[in-house]
Amino acid sequence: MKMSVVQMVKIVGLGAVALTLSVEWLDWLFCRLWPRKISRGPLKEVYFFPTEVACTERLFTPDSPFPCPCPLPHNVNTSFTRLLGHILSASSSLDLCVFAFTNLDLSRAVLALHTRGIPIRILTDMEYTLITGSQIGVIRRAGICVRCDSGAVHMHHKFAVVDGRRLITGSLNWTLTAIQSNKENILVTEEPDLVLPFITEFQRLWDVNDPARRHLPSIAEKTASLVL
Amino acid sequence: MKMSVVQMVKIVGLGAVALTLSVEWLDWLFCRLWPRKISRGPLKEVYFFPTEVACTERLFTPDSPFPCPCPLPHNVNTSFTRLLGHILSASSSLDLCVFAFTNLDLSRAVLALHTRGIPIRILTDMEYTLITGSQIGVIRRAGICVRCDSGAVHMHHKFAVVDGRRLITGSLNWTLTAIQSNKENILVTEEPDLVLPFITEFQRLWDVNDPARRHLPSIAEKTASLVL
Repeated sequence: MKMSVVQMVKIVGLGAVALTLSVEWLDWLFCRLWPRKISRGPLKEVYFFPTEVACTERLFTPDSPFPCPCPLPHNVNTSFTRLLGHILSASSSLDLCVFAFTNLDLSRAVLALHTRGIPIRILTDMEYTLITGSQIGVIRRAGICVRCDSGAVHMHHKFAVVDGRRLITGSLNWTLTAIQSNKENILVTEEPDLVLPFITEFQRLWDVNDPARRHLPSIAEKTASLVL
Repeated sequence: MKMSVVQMVKIVGLGAVALTLSVEWLDWLFCRLWPRKISRGPLKEVYFFPTEVACTERLFTPDSPFPCPCPLPHNVNTSFTRLLGHILSASSSLDLCVFAFTNLDLSRAVLALHTRGIPIRILTDMEYTLITGSQIGVIRRAGICVRCDSGAVHMHHKFAVVDGRRLITGSLNWTLTAIQSNKENILVTEEPDLVLPFITEFQRLWDVNDPARRHLPSIAEKTASLVL
Protein backbone atom coordinates (compact mmCIF):
# COMPACT_ATOMS: atom_id res chain seq x y z
CA MET A 1 0.00 0.00 0.00
CA LYS A 2 2.97 2.27 0.68
CA MET A 3 4.02 1.63 -2.89
CA SER A 4 0.64 2.80 -4.18
CA VAL A 5 1.01 6.17 -2.32
CA VAL A 6 4.37 6.74 -4.01
CA GLN A 7 2.82 5.72 -7.31
CA MET A 8 -0.05 8.13 -6.77
CA VAL A 9 2.36 11.01 -6.08
CA LYS A 10 4.36 10.04 -9.17
CA ILE A 11 1.22 9.92 -11.31
CA VAL A 12 0.03 13.33 -10.08
CA GLY A 13 3.52 14.82 -10.61
CA LEU A 14 3.95 13.30 -14.06
CA GLY A 15 0.42 14.38 -14.97
CA ALA A 16 1.22 18.00 -14.01
CA VAL A 17 4.47 17.93 -16.00
CA ALA A 18 2.74 16.35 -19.01
CA LEU A 19 -0.07 18.93 -18.88
CA THR A 20 2.40 21.84 -18.70
CA LEU A 21 4.49 20.47 -21.59
CA SER A 22 1.34 19.85 -23.68
CA VAL A 23 0.13 23.43 -23.18
CA GLU A 24 3.60 24.82 -24.04
CA TRP A 25 3.86 22.56 -27.08
CA LEU A 26 0.37 23.43 -28.33
CA ASP A 27 1.17 27.16 -27.86
CA TRP A 28 4.38 26.75 -29.88
CA LEU A 29 2.55 24.76 -32.59
CA PHE A 30 -0.27 27.34 -32.96
CA CYS A 31 2.26 30.18 -33.12
CA ARG A 32 4.18 28.35 -35.86
CA LEU A 33 1.07 27.51 -37.88
CA TRP A 34 -0.78 30.81 -37.53
CA PRO A 35 1.81 33.37 -36.35
CA ARG A 36 -0.44 36.39 -37.03
CA LYS A 37 -3.74 34.95 -35.82
CA ILE A 38 -2.69 34.29 -32.25
CA SER A 39 -3.10 37.40 -30.18
CA ARG A 40 -0.15 37.84 -27.83
CA GLY A 41 -0.94 40.41 -25.16
CA PRO A 42 -2.15 43.93 -25.88
CA LEU A 43 -2.99 45.22 -29.39
CA LYS A 44 0.09 45.85 -31.56
CA GLU A 45 -0.29 46.89 -35.20
CA VAL A 46 1.86 48.69 -37.78
CA TYR A 47 0.62 50.34 -40.99
CA PHE A 48 2.59 51.85 -43.83
CA PHE A 49 1.68 54.58 -46.27
CA PRO A 50 1.05 55.69 -49.01
CA THR A 51 -2.13 53.69 -49.11
CA GLU A 52 -4.36 52.87 -52.06
CA VAL A 53 -7.41 55.12 -52.32
CA ALA A 54 -10.67 53.47 -51.24
CA CYS A 55 -14.18 54.56 -50.27
CA THR A 56 -14.50 55.30 -46.53
CA GLU A 57 -18.29 55.87 -46.49
CA ARG A 58 -19.13 52.53 -44.81
CA LEU A 59 -17.02 53.59 -41.79
CA PHE A 60 -19.16 56.70 -41.29
CA THR A 61 -22.56 55.17 -42.14
CA PRO A 62 -22.26 51.44 -41.35
CA ASP A 63 -26.05 51.03 -41.02
CA SER A 64 -26.96 52.71 -44.30
CA PRO A 65 -29.07 50.42 -46.53
CA PHE A 66 -27.89 52.24 -49.68
CA PRO A 67 -24.53 51.37 -51.23
CA CYS A 68 -22.22 54.31 -51.81
CA PRO A 69 -22.40 55.37 -55.49
CA CYS A 70 -18.84 56.81 -55.60
CA PRO A 71 -16.41 55.39 -58.19
CA LEU A 72 -13.76 54.39 -55.59
CA PRO A 73 -13.22 50.72 -54.59
CA HIS A 74 -15.59 49.66 -51.79
CA ASN A 75 -15.16 47.32 -48.80
CA VAL A 76 -11.40 47.48 -49.14
CA ASN A 77 -9.21 47.49 -46.02
CA THR A 78 -6.29 49.87 -46.42
CA SER A 79 -3.83 51.44 -43.95
CA PHE A 80 -6.04 54.52 -44.03
CA THR A 81 -9.39 52.77 -43.43
CA ARG A 82 -7.75 51.00 -40.47
CA LEU A 83 -6.47 54.31 -39.07
CA LEU A 84 -9.92 55.83 -39.56
CA GLY A 85 -11.50 52.78 -37.90
CA HIS A 86 -9.28 53.21 -34.84
CA ILE A 87 -10.24 56.90 -34.54
CA LEU A 88 -13.97 56.17 -35.02
CA SER A 89 -13.78 53.37 -32.42
CA ALA A 90 -13.43 55.98 -29.65
CA SER A 91 -16.18 55.56 -27.07
CA SER A 92 -15.01 57.71 -24.15
CA SER A 93 -12.28 60.16 -25.29
CA LEU A 94 -9.90 61.26 -28.04
CA ASP A 95 -6.70 63.19 -27.32
CA LEU A 96 -4.96 64.28 -30.49
CA CYS A 97 -1.53 65.92 -30.71
CA VAL A 98 -0.77 66.64 -34.36
CA PHE A 99 1.54 69.01 -36.24
CA ALA A 100 -0.53 69.40 -39.45
CA PHE A 101 -4.22 68.53 -39.91
CA THR A 102 -5.76 68.98 -43.36
CA ASN A 103 -7.27 65.56 -44.13
CA LEU A 104 -11.03 65.82 -44.73
CA ASP A 105 -11.89 62.21 -43.79
CA LEU A 106 -10.04 62.48 -40.47
CA SER A 107 -11.71 65.84 -39.84
CA ARG A 108 -15.10 64.22 -40.56
CA ALA A 109 -14.22 61.42 -38.11
CA VAL A 110 -13.35 63.92 -35.36
CA LEU A 111 -16.60 65.85 -36.01
CA ALA A 112 -18.60 62.57 -35.95
CA LEU A 113 -17.13 61.69 -32.54
CA HIS A 114 -17.98 65.20 -31.30
CA THR A 115 -21.60 64.74 -32.50
CA ARG A 116 -21.70 61.48 -30.52
CA GLY A 117 -20.75 63.52 -27.42
CA ILE A 118 -17.26 62.07 -27.00
CA PRO A 119 -14.85 64.48 -25.26
CA ILE A 120 -12.08 65.54 -27.67
CA ARG A 121 -8.93 67.55 -26.99
CA ILE A 122 -6.71 68.67 -29.88
CA LEU A 123 -3.24 70.10 -29.49
CA THR A 124 -1.58 71.45 -32.63
CA ASP A 125 1.17 73.71 -33.93
CA MET A 126 0.12 77.38 -34.04
CA GLU A 127 1.95 78.11 -37.33
CA TYR A 128 0.49 75.06 -39.07
CA THR A 129 -3.12 76.00 -38.25
CA LEU A 130 -2.63 78.68 -40.95
CA ILE A 131 -1.69 76.35 -43.81
CA THR A 132 -4.05 75.94 -46.77
CA GLY A 133 -6.81 73.45 -46.02
CA SER A 134 -6.14 73.28 -42.27
CA GLN A 135 -9.13 71.67 -40.54
CA ILE A 136 -8.40 73.28 -37.17
CA GLY A 137 -10.74 76.24 -37.88
CA VAL A 138 -13.63 73.94 -38.88
CA ILE A 139 -13.08 71.77 -35.80
CA ARG A 140 -12.87 74.77 -33.48
CA ARG A 141 -16.06 76.29 -34.92
CA ALA A 142 -17.84 72.98 -34.23
CA GLY A 143 -17.09 73.55 -30.53
CA ILE A 144 -14.21 71.10 -30.09
CA CYS A 145 -11.54 72.15 -27.62
CA VAL A 146 -8.31 73.04 -29.47
CA ARG A 147 -5.08 74.38 -27.98
CA CYS A 148 -2.17 75.67 -30.07
CA ASP A 149 1.49 75.39 -29.21
CA SER A 150 2.85 78.81 -30.02
CA GLY A 151 6.53 78.18 -29.28
CA ALA A 152 9.16 79.50 -31.68
CA VAL A 153 9.76 75.93 -32.82
CA HIS A 154 7.53 73.11 -34.04
CA MET A 155 5.06 71.03 -32.03
CA HIS A 156 6.04 68.13 -34.28
CA HIS A 157 4.20 65.24 -32.57
CA LYS A 158 1.80 63.08 -34.58
CA PHE A 159 0.02 60.94 -32.01
CA ALA A 160 -3.46 60.22 -30.74
CA VAL A 161 -4.73 58.42 -27.65
CA VAL A 162 -8.14 56.78 -28.04
CA ASP A 163 -10.19 56.09 -24.88
CA GLY A 164 -7.09 56.65 -22.74
CA ARG A 165 -5.69 53.25 -23.71
CA ARG A 166 -5.00 52.99 -27.46
CA LEU A 167 -1.98 54.87 -28.83
CA ILE A 168 -1.62 55.79 -32.51
CA THR A 169 1.82 57.28 -33.25
CA GLY A 170 4.38 57.52 -36.05
CA SER A 171 5.65 59.78 -38.82
CA LEU A 172 2.23 60.47 -40.35
CA ASN A 173 0.73 63.95 -40.22
CA TRP A 174 -3.04 64.09 -40.71
CA THR A 175 -2.75 65.41 -44.28
CA LEU A 176 -3.80 64.07 -47.69
CA THR A 177 -0.20 64.16 -48.99
CA ALA A 178 1.02 62.10 -46.04
CA ILE A 179 -1.69 59.48 -46.53
CA GLN A 180 -1.80 59.19 -50.32
CA SER A 181 1.72 60.15 -51.42
CA ASN A 182 4.47 60.10 -48.77
CA LYS A 183 6.25 57.06 -47.38
CA GLU A 184 5.00 57.04 -43.79
CA ASN A 185 4.27 54.73 -40.87
CA ILE A 186 1.94 54.50 -37.92
CA LEU A 187 2.05 52.15 -34.99
CA VAL A 188 -1.08 51.30 -32.99
CA THR A 189 -0.72 49.75 -29.55
CA GLU A 190 -2.47 49.25 -26.23
CA GLU A 191 0.76 48.24 -24.47
CA PRO A 192 0.54 50.26 -21.19
CA ASP A 193 4.33 50.84 -20.99
CA LEU A 194 4.14 52.63 -24.35
CA VAL A 195 0.75 54.34 -23.97
CA LEU A 196 1.13 55.84 -20.48
CA PRO A 197 4.14 58.11 -21.25
CA PHE A 198 2.17 59.60 -24.19
CA ILE A 199 -0.87 60.22 -21.94
CA THR A 200 1.35 62.00 -19.38
CA GLU A 201 3.10 64.07 -22.09
CA PHE A 202 -0.23 65.05 -23.65
CA GLN A 203 -1.54 66.27 -20.29
CA ARG A 204 1.71 68.21 -19.66
CA LEU A 205 1.56 69.95 -23.05
CA TRP A 206 -2.17 70.55 -22.66
CA ASP A 207 -1.60 72.31 -19.31
CA VAL A 208 1.42 74.28 -20.59
CA ASN A 209 -0.63 75.57 -23.53
CA ASP A 210 -3.66 76.57 -21.48
CA PRO A 211 -4.49 80.08 -22.81
CA ALA A 212 -5.74 81.14 -19.36
CA ARG A 213 -2.41 80.22 -17.79
CA ARG A 214 -0.43 81.87 -20.60
CA HIS A 215 -2.00 85.30 -20.01
CA LEU A 216 -2.12 85.11 -16.23
CA PRO A 217 0.64 87.36 -14.83
CA SER A 218 2.80 85.63 -12.22
CA ILE A 219 3.35 87.11 -8.73
CA ALA A 220 6.86 88.18 -9.83
CA GLU A 221 5.42 89.98 -12.87
CA LYS A 222 2.75 91.68 -10.72
CA THR A 223 5.39 92.81 -8.19
CA ALA A 224 7.62 94.10 -11.00
CA SER A 225 4.73 96.09 -12.50
CA LEU A 226 3.97 97.60 -9.07
CA VAL A 227 7.62 98.57 -8.60
CA LEU A 228 7.75 100.11 -12.08
CA MET B 1 -4.58 3.79 4.64
CA LYS B 2 -7.06 4.58 1.89
CA MET B 3 -7.66 7.87 3.70
CA SER B 4 -3.95 8.74 3.59
CA VAL B 5 -3.83 8.35 -0.23
CA VAL B 6 -6.72 10.81 -0.57
CA GLN B 7 -4.95 13.09 1.91
CA MET B 8 -1.73 12.86 -0.08
CA VAL B 9 -3.53 13.83 -3.32
CA LYS B 10 -5.24 16.68 -1.49
CA ILE B 11 -1.93 17.91 -0.06
CA VAL B 12 -0.21 17.81 -3.47
CA GLY B 13 -3.20 19.55 -5.09
CA LEU B 14 -3.45 22.22 -2.43
CA GLY B 15 0.33 22.71 -2.54
CA ALA B 16 0.19 23.34 -6.29
CA VAL B 17 -2.72 25.80 -5.92
CA ALA B 18 -0.95 27.60 -3.02
CA LEU B 19 2.28 27.84 -5.02
CA THR B 20 0.50 29.26 -8.08
CA LEU B 21 -1.44 31.79 -5.99
CA SER B 22 1.74 32.82 -4.13
CA VAL B 23 3.63 33.44 -7.38
CA GLU B 24 0.70 35.43 -8.82
CA TRP B 25 0.32 37.43 -5.60
CA LEU B 26 4.07 38.16 -5.37
CA ASP B 27 4.07 39.25 -9.04
CA TRP B 28 1.12 41.59 -8.36
CA LEU B 29 2.83 42.95 -5.21
CA PHE B 30 6.16 43.64 -6.96
CA CYS B 31 4.37 45.35 -9.85
CA ARG B 32 2.46 47.59 -7.40
CA LEU B 33 5.56 48.45 -5.35
CA TRP B 34 8.05 48.95 -8.21
CA PRO B 35 5.93 49.37 -11.36
CA ARG B 36 8.85 50.64 -13.49
CA LYS B 37 11.55 48.34 -12.17
CA ILE B 38 9.91 45.08 -13.14
CA SER B 39 10.69 44.26 -16.74
CA ARG B 40 7.62 42.90 -18.49
CA GLY B 41 8.57 41.24 -21.75
CA PRO B 42 10.62 42.87 -24.50
CA LEU B 43 12.20 46.33 -24.18
CA LYS B 44 9.67 49.20 -24.36
CA GLU B 45 10.78 52.81 -23.84
CA VAL B 46 9.46 56.25 -24.81
CA TYR B 47 11.47 59.49 -24.89
CA PHE B 48 10.29 63.03 -25.46
CA PHE B 49 12.09 66.03 -26.87
CA PRO B 50 13.34 68.78 -26.73
CA THR B 51 15.98 67.48 -24.40
CA GLU B 52 18.41 69.39 -22.20
CA VAL B 53 21.87 69.79 -23.73
CA ALA B 54 24.53 67.53 -22.17
CA CYS B 55 28.00 66.28 -23.04
CA THR B 56 27.93 63.07 -25.10
CA GLU B 57 31.70 62.42 -25.10
CA ARG B 58 31.59 59.53 -22.60
CA LEU B 59 29.34 57.60 -25.01
CA PHE B 60 31.99 57.78 -27.74
CA THR B 61 35.07 57.30 -25.55
CA PRO B 62 33.87 55.34 -22.48
CA ASP B 63 37.39 54.09 -21.70
CA SER B 64 39.11 57.48 -21.85
CA PRO B 65 40.98 58.26 -18.59
CA PHE B 66 40.67 62.01 -19.20
CA PRO B 67 37.47 63.84 -18.29
CA CYS B 68 35.92 65.90 -21.08
CA PRO B 69 36.84 69.58 -20.61
CA CYS B 70 33.74 70.95 -22.40
CA PRO B 71 31.44 73.29 -20.44
CA LEU B 72 28.31 71.15 -20.92
CA PRO B 73 26.87 69.07 -18.03
CA HIS B 74 28.54 65.64 -17.79
CA ASN B 75 27.20 62.18 -16.86
CA VAL B 76 23.63 63.34 -17.41
CA ASN B 77 21.08 60.98 -18.94
CA THR B 78 18.81 62.79 -21.38
CA SER B 79 16.43 61.63 -24.10
CA PHE B 80 19.23 62.30 -26.58
CA THR B 81 22.00 60.44 -24.72
CA ARG B 82 19.62 57.47 -24.48
CA LEU B 83 18.89 57.62 -28.23
CA LEU B 84 22.62 57.87 -28.93
CA GLY B 85 23.26 54.95 -26.56
CA HIS B 86 20.76 52.78 -28.46
CA ILE B 87 22.44 53.59 -31.80
CA LEU B 88 25.94 52.98 -30.40
CA SER B 89 24.80 49.67 -28.87
CA ALA B 90 24.62 48.14 -32.40
CA SER B 91 26.81 45.06 -32.61
CA SER B 92 25.73 43.41 -35.87
CA SER B 93 23.78 45.90 -38.05
CA LEU B 94 22.10 49.29 -38.34
CA ASP B 95 19.32 50.00 -40.83
CA LEU B 96 18.31 53.65 -40.85
CA CYS B 97 15.38 55.15 -42.75
CA VAL B 98 15.33 58.89 -42.11
CA PHE B 99 13.89 61.93 -43.87
CA ALA B 100 16.42 64.55 -42.70
CA PHE B 101 19.86 63.88 -41.19
CA THR B 102 21.93 66.87 -40.06
CA ASN B 103 22.79 66.03 -36.43
CA LEU B 104 26.56 65.87 -35.89
CA ASP B 105 26.49 63.56 -32.84
CA LEU B 106 24.28 61.03 -34.62
CA SER B 107 26.52 61.28 -37.69
CA ARG B 108 29.56 60.63 -35.45
CA ALA B 109 27.78 57.60 -33.96
CA VAL B 110 27.06 56.16 -37.42
CA LEU B 111 30.70 56.74 -38.47
CA ALA B 112 31.92 55.11 -35.23
CA LEU B 113 29.83 52.00 -35.95
CA HIS B 114 31.23 51.93 -39.49
CA THR B 115 34.79 52.08 -38.10
CA ARG B 116 33.91 49.10 -35.88
CA GLY B 117 32.98 47.21 -39.07
CA ILE B 118 29.24 47.06 -38.41
CA PRO B 119 27.17 46.84 -41.63
CA ILE B 120 25.07 50.00 -42.06
CA ARG B 121 22.35 50.76 -44.61
CA ILE B 122 20.87 54.25 -44.84
CA LEU B 123 17.75 55.14 -46.79
CA THR B 124 16.89 58.83 -47.05
CA ASP B 125 14.89 61.40 -49.01
CA MET B 126 16.69 62.57 -52.16
CA GLU B 127 15.56 66.21 -51.82
CA TYR B 128 16.57 66.42 -48.15
CA THR B 129 20.14 65.23 -48.80
CA LEU B 130 20.64 68.74 -50.29
CA ILE B 131 19.63 70.73 -47.19
CA THR B 132 22.26 72.78 -45.35
CA GLY B 133 24.28 70.63 -42.98
CA SER B 134 23.07 67.29 -44.34
CA GLN B 135 25.37 64.52 -43.11
CA ILE B 136 24.53 62.16 -45.99
CA GLY B 137 27.52 63.35 -48.08
CA VAL B 138 29.96 62.83 -45.17
CA ILE B 139 28.52 59.38 -44.47
CA ARG B 140 28.62 58.37 -48.13
CA ARG B 141 32.24 59.53 -48.50
CA ALA B 142 33.16 57.36 -45.48
CA GLY B 143 32.02 54.35 -47.54
CA ILE B 144 28.66 53.71 -45.88
CA CYS B 145 25.95 52.39 -48.18
CA VAL B 146 23.27 55.08 -48.74
CA ARG B 147 20.22 54.89 -51.02
CA CYS B 148 17.98 57.85 -51.79
CA ASP B 149 14.26 57.75 -52.38
CA SER B 150 13.79 59.97 -55.40
CA GLY B 151 9.99 59.85 -55.63
CA ALA B 152 8.07 63.07 -56.30
CA VAL B 153 6.91 62.99 -52.66
CA HIS B 154 8.63 62.65 -49.31
CA MET B 155 10.30 59.57 -47.84
CA HIS B 156 9.05 60.80 -44.47
CA HIS B 157 9.97 57.83 -42.24
CA LYS B 158 12.11 58.38 -39.15
CA PHE B 159 13.01 54.91 -37.93
CA ALA B 160 16.06 52.76 -37.28
CA VAL B 161 16.44 49.04 -36.64
CA VAL B 162 19.46 48.09 -34.50
CA ASP B 163 20.84 44.52 -34.79
CA GLY B 164 17.66 43.43 -36.59
CA ARG B 165 15.71 43.41 -33.32
CA ARG B 166 15.52 46.89 -31.72
CA LEU B 167 13.21 49.45 -33.34
CA ILE B 168 13.57 53.21 -32.80
CA THR B 169 10.67 55.14 -34.36
CA GLY B 170 8.66 58.31 -33.89
CA SER B 171 8.30 61.90 -35.06
CA LEU B 172 11.98 62.82 -34.60
CA ASN B 173 14.15 63.60 -37.61
CA TRP B 174 17.89 63.30 -37.00
CA THR B 175 18.40 67.08 -36.87
CA LEU B 176 19.62 69.48 -34.19
CA THR B 177 16.35 71.47 -34.29
CA ALA B 178 14.31 68.31 -33.73
CA ILE B 179 16.43 67.26 -30.75
CA GLN B 180 17.02 70.59 -29.01
CA SER B 181 13.99 72.69 -29.97
CA ASN B 182 10.94 70.84 -31.34
CA LYS B 183 8.38 68.88 -29.37
CA GLU B 184 9.06 65.33 -30.55
CA ASN B 185 8.87 61.70 -29.47
CA ILE B 186 10.63 58.44 -30.06
CA LEU B 187 9.60 54.96 -29.06
CA VAL B 188 12.16 52.17 -28.61
CA THR B 189 10.99 48.57 -28.58
CA GLU B 190 12.11 45.00 -29.16
CA GLU B 191 8.52 43.72 -29.39
CA PRO B 192 8.69 41.40 -32.45
CA ASP B 193 5.12 42.23 -33.60
CA LEU B 194 6.17 45.88 -33.91
CA VAL B 195 9.77 45.42 -35.12
CA LEU B 196 9.21 42.83 -37.89
CA PRO B 197 6.90 44.99 -40.09
CA PHE B 198 9.54 47.77 -40.04
CA ILE B 199 12.29 45.29 -41.04
CA THR B 200 10.14 44.07 -43.95
CA GLU B 201 9.28 47.62 -45.05
CA PHE B 202 12.93 48.69 -44.87
CA GLN B 203 13.97 45.79 -47.10
CA ARG B 204 11.17 46.58 -49.56
CA LEU B 205 12.15 50.26 -49.82
CA TRP B 206 15.85 49.31 -49.98
CA ASP B 207 15.17 46.99 -52.95
CA VAL B 208 12.86 49.49 -54.69
CA ASN B 209 15.54 52.18 -54.46
CA ASP B 210 18.38 50.00 -55.72
CA PRO B 211 20.13 52.29 -58.28
CA ALA B 212 21.09 49.24 -60.38
CA ARG B 213 17.47 48.19 -60.65
CA ARG B 214 16.31 51.74 -61.40
CA HIS B 215 18.56 52.10 -64.48
CA LEU B 216 18.15 48.57 -65.77
CA PRO B 217 15.89 48.68 -68.88
CA SER B 218 13.05 46.16 -68.79
CA ILE B 219 12.49 43.62 -71.59
CA ALA B 220 9.55 45.75 -72.81
CA GLU B 221 11.78 48.83 -72.98
CA LYS B 222 14.50 46.86 -74.82
CA THR B 223 11.95 45.52 -77.35
CA ALA B 224 10.53 49.03 -77.86
CA SER B 225 14.01 50.44 -78.52
CA LEU B 226 14.66 47.64 -81.04
CA VAL B 227 11.35 48.34 -82.82
CA LEU B 228 12.12 52.07 -82.91
